[in-house]
Amino acid sequence: MARKKTNRLGIVCIVGPGLIGGSIGLGLKKKGLAELVIGVGRRSPSLTKALKLGAIDRATQDIEKGAGDADIVILCTSVRLIPQMAAKAVPVMKRGAILTDVGSTKQHIVKCIQDIKRKDIPFIGGHPIAGSERRGIEAAKADLFEGRLCILTPAGRNAGALRTIKALWQGLGAKISILSPDEHDRTLAATSHLPLILAASLVSTVGAKRLPYTGPGFRDMTRIASSDPELWCDILLQNRRKVLDALKLFQKELSHIESAIYGERQARLSSQLMRAKRLRDAL
Amino acid sequence: MARKKTNRLGIVCIVGPGLIGGSIGLGLKKKGLAELVIGVGRRSPSLTKALKLGAIDRATQDIEKGAGDADIVILCTSVRLIPQMAAKAVPVMKRGAILTDVGSTKQHIVKCIQDIKRKDIPFIGGHPIAGSERRGIEAAKADLFEGRLCILTPAGRNAGALRTIKALWQGLGAKISILSPDEHDRTLAATSHLPLILAASLVSTVGAKRLPYTGPGFRDMTRIASSDPELWCDILLQNRRKVLDALKLFQKELSHIESAIYGERQARLSSQLMRAKRLRDAL
Repeated sequence: MARKKTNRLGIVCIVGPGLIGGSIGLGLKKKGLAELVIGVGRRSPSLTKALKLGAIDRATQDIEKGAGDADIVILCTSVRLIPQMAAKAVPVMKRGAILTDVGSTKQHIVKCIQDIKRKDIPFIGGHPIAGSERRGIEAAKADLFEGRLCILTPAGRNAGALRTIKALWQGLGAKISILSPDEHDRTLAATSHLPLILAASLVSTVGAKRLPYTGPGFRDMTRIASSDPELWCDILLQNRRKVLDALKLFQKELSHIESAIYGERQARLSSQLMRAKRLRDAL
Repeated sequence: MARKKTNRLGIVCIVGPGLIGGSIGLGLKKKGLAELVIGVGRRSPSLTKALKLGAIDRATQDIEKGAGDADIVILCTSVRLIPQMAAKAVPVMKRGAILTDVGSTKQHIVKCIQDIKRKDIPFIGGHPIAGSERRGIEAAKADLFEGRLCILTPAGRNAGALRTIKALWQGLGAKISILSPDEHDRTLAATSHLPLILAASLVSTVGAKRLPYTGPGFRDMTRIASSDPELWCDILLQNRRKVLDALKLFQKELSHIESAIYGERQARLSSQLMRAKRLRDAL
């Protein structure tokens, strides 16, 4: 394993060491990328677990204490709490320290954090595409980001901070893509937020009585409907307009297939399914 | 392994030894349930492969030859070809032999086979819920049906034939559910045909440009969009009315979530997602 520049990220503070935050901690420690990993959490048992699993070196329930010492503060809470956590962390952060996050939405979060206005703390928005229907530190693993994409949405110009956060994610095995917060949210509305809505609607359409007649395809397709509803509510409402746009586009695609079936237009139906197959096969 | 009544199913003819037919053959032979397994196929290389893999004992491209010797004829072709294969097999079948199939639709197939009118050949419609986006004998495996559901739709009254076909599927490890062809098609429209349409529409909505920004949840959700478009065209058109009904129900569920997002009704949105989560968690 290449450990050319060990500890190069300095002291990292992970606010919310759950599935994502805990996996970051495990990965940083496994690869020897950080000098120290501080975990900030609300619940003491979770912090104890994170310590036991070796995802963090030190635990505190006091964000101001945890963030004050850090060179990098990573906000890994629900998207609803990220702005609040930022508001608490930013005032106590060291001059030149970097703030980043892993939230599934970006425009709302970037706007909130820009309103905090501390020019010497660069904010690099981040979003690793490596979620799961599972939650919590128990599901965390050091290689969660290996080969996955991490989207960064740097606000303003701070090439040094961007380089550091890129190095962090690349160190964890992720590939980097740079998008604007607007592009991120528009893209994820289609690739992530829309699928959640479809999975939930599909499960509700089938209903309890018919669930026993579902096969492995249905299981795969609806797995994300088991995700935490509160987390998703926040995401869908924060990205409301773009989610509604994605729904409109989807309904248009759906109506193409529907009308081909209605009109018994075999050739048209077949070419629509073939187009989807070609796209999917390319994945 | 319990091999109490070996070979009890006699000579079994599998028309179309692909993923499903080939897996039936492999399972029958592994469990010693059949005296002989004859494979009928159109393409010689596939038959050769089926012989090599041990899914069949004997191969022929002539359905009349294969079906004439059999105690059980299992039609495993696409749903479009099942009625044609039945029309060829039934006239040559031995008195008292049983005809069955594995088609994903039932009403249309049952109607076609009833029109053939040979009263001494009972038809037991069958549908194992064990598909895959893959196809062909290469993907076949002896335990494909282990723990899966197989729906049987017996037409008319023939308790002996139903018992035999039940024994066949139970021998392969499947659980049996008896439905009318109408119930089968209504159920599968929601649990299987609708998901295929949603997966295809979702892939098309996301499009080539945004596919790199998808995660594991999206992959799982759209896997079935890689299935064979021709097979699916036939299924969707044979079950057209019930598929359109399922689409209407889905669109209603979707519009509930859409309007909760549009109206920023957090509590309503949360309870809709929670309902779907509870249903999905019960799977």
